[in-house]
Amino acid sequence: MNSFFRKIVDNFEKKGTCLCVGLDPEPSKIPHRYAGSETPYFDFLADVVEATHEFVCAYKPNIAFFESAGPNGLDQLIRLIRHIHDIDEDIPVILDAKRGDIGNTAKHYAKAVFDIYSADGATVSPYMGGDTLTAFIEREDAGIFVLCLTSNPGYADFENLAVDGEPLFVRVARKMAEIDRHGNIGLVVGATHPSEAEKVRETAPELPFLMPGIGAQGGDPSAIMKIGMTSKGIPPIVNSSRGILYPEQSTIEAVRESAIRTRDMLRRYT
Amino acid sequence: MNSFFRKIVDNFEKKGTCLCVGLDPEPSKIPHRYAGSETPYFDFLADVVEATHEFVCAYKPNIAFFESAGPNGLDQLIRLIRHIHDIDEDIPVILDAKRGDIGNTAKHYAKAVFDIYSADGATVSPYMGGDTLTAFIEREDAGIFVLCLTSNPGYADFENLAVDGEPLFVRVARKMAEIDRHGNIGLVVGATHPSEAEKVRETAPELPFLMPGIGAQGGDPSAIMKIGMTSKGIPPIVNSSRGILYPEQSTIEAVRESAIRTRDMLRRYT
Repeated sequence: MNSFFRKIVDNFEKKGTCLCVGLDPEPSKIPHRYAGSETPYFDFLADVVEATHEFVCAYKPNIAFFESAGPNGLDQLIRLIRHIHDIDEDIPVILDAKRGDIGNTAKHYAKAVFDIYSADGATVSPYMGGDTLTAFIEREDAGIFVLCLTSNPGYADFENLAVDGEPLFVRVARKMAEIDRHGNIGLVVGATHPSEAEKVRETAPELPFLMPGIGAQGGDPSAIMKIGMTSKGIPPIVNSSRGILYPEQSTIEAVRESAIRTRDMLRRYT
Repeated sequence: MNSFFRKIVDNFEKKGTCLCVGLDPEPSKIPHRYAGSETPYFDFLADVVEATHEFVCAYKPNIAFFESAGPNGLDQLIRLIRHIHDIDEDIPVILDAKRGDIGNTAKHYAKAVFDIYSADGATVSPYMGGDTLTAFIEREDAGIFVLCLTSNPGYADFENLAVDGEPLFVRVARKMAEIDRHGNIGLVVGATHPSEAEKVRETAPELPFLMPGIGAQGGDPSAIMKIGMTSKGIPPIVNSSRGILYPEQSTIEAVRESAIRTRDMLRRYT
């Protein structure tokens, strides 16, 4: 098992958690007290990490939220990921970037993700084919999560189309299982479609799942924990973003309580 | 016709060009004389734009090459796009970013592309479905190019799989033709697969094509010009990156000559 997934398993066994917190700074939702700062995203999310790191197995910042604030936003992302590593080097950071491009270009994306932002893992898009993932898969110690079955309604447009009698997302899963030489490929599998997720699990029993869609999107935790576990005991990395970051009461204490509550909910079905 | 495609048609009719130059700064290939600068990408590419803008219909920087240089690289991208607009406001800039994410996140990507980087168009990925493109398509004056049939060998892995007897890329083309309310959707169609590209043209006669794959990748200009034209007379936007930027003789004069030669080659088949 590579070092990325070793940490995920250790966090599950020792800390009892497979919760990943999505770090998506939405300007309109960040507590007011951060508004005056030059670096509101960093300040807010550093407090979130401080309050939640005991209860999580991974963090997943989505780069879009930082990029929309310009180069200063991306500077804050760089600082944030370093800060997470300083607080606890055993919590991997997955940069949700959904990258995908031809070989030469993909090398630059991989360099940005791993060397500039210093993430430990990333999400990537399969549409253009296996050769476009090579630059990511070469990072043997990383966790590379390929979009497979996503949690949004639009998954029906292409992912769920039948290819020779089986859905495209099953073909993606099979191809990824085939090319997984280093044991570093995982799949993004939405928690909102349990029966479809089960087909992915059957197709790729050994590939770890990154599962968005609990919390705000309403996925079922008992199905997630059952389907999400690999045949070799790597638990699903279950992501919640808005459901943790933006509780009704806009305080860091409430964020901490959301994280504990979600971890406990997942633990009940382990 | 929206303002983006109006400019493409005007550049074709008045300047006689449908050449798009891909602005991909590869550190190992940039002429040595830029190496000492704090902003080598901007300096090199500003000279490229100065030397080529009379011969092009659009520019297409690929953000990966800037992102891999960190926030300073993205600062140079911002400056570069503004500079292109200053030199000639009738040359649209397509940011090659291949973005695709769920609705709330896609809004942030669209904000980055159009408001931070001030691009006029962008490339996006269809895998997650039509709802993930909404934030881009809402930019009515932009050119939104959806990955359809790409020029790399890996296109065979998923794009070319048969869905109910026709390839996935045809389904993508049909869906995009269906949802194109504002006349701002185009398709990325590789110049390296002419018979497949013809199927896309039959499926979506009105959708403009962004066609990579001439030059370094070897696509056939006569096929490109024939298949690339829409039923309403919008020419293909034919992209060459390495073939223009990095000629054997590493001078700006040679870059200019490559651009002229490529424009002329495309013009012969008009």
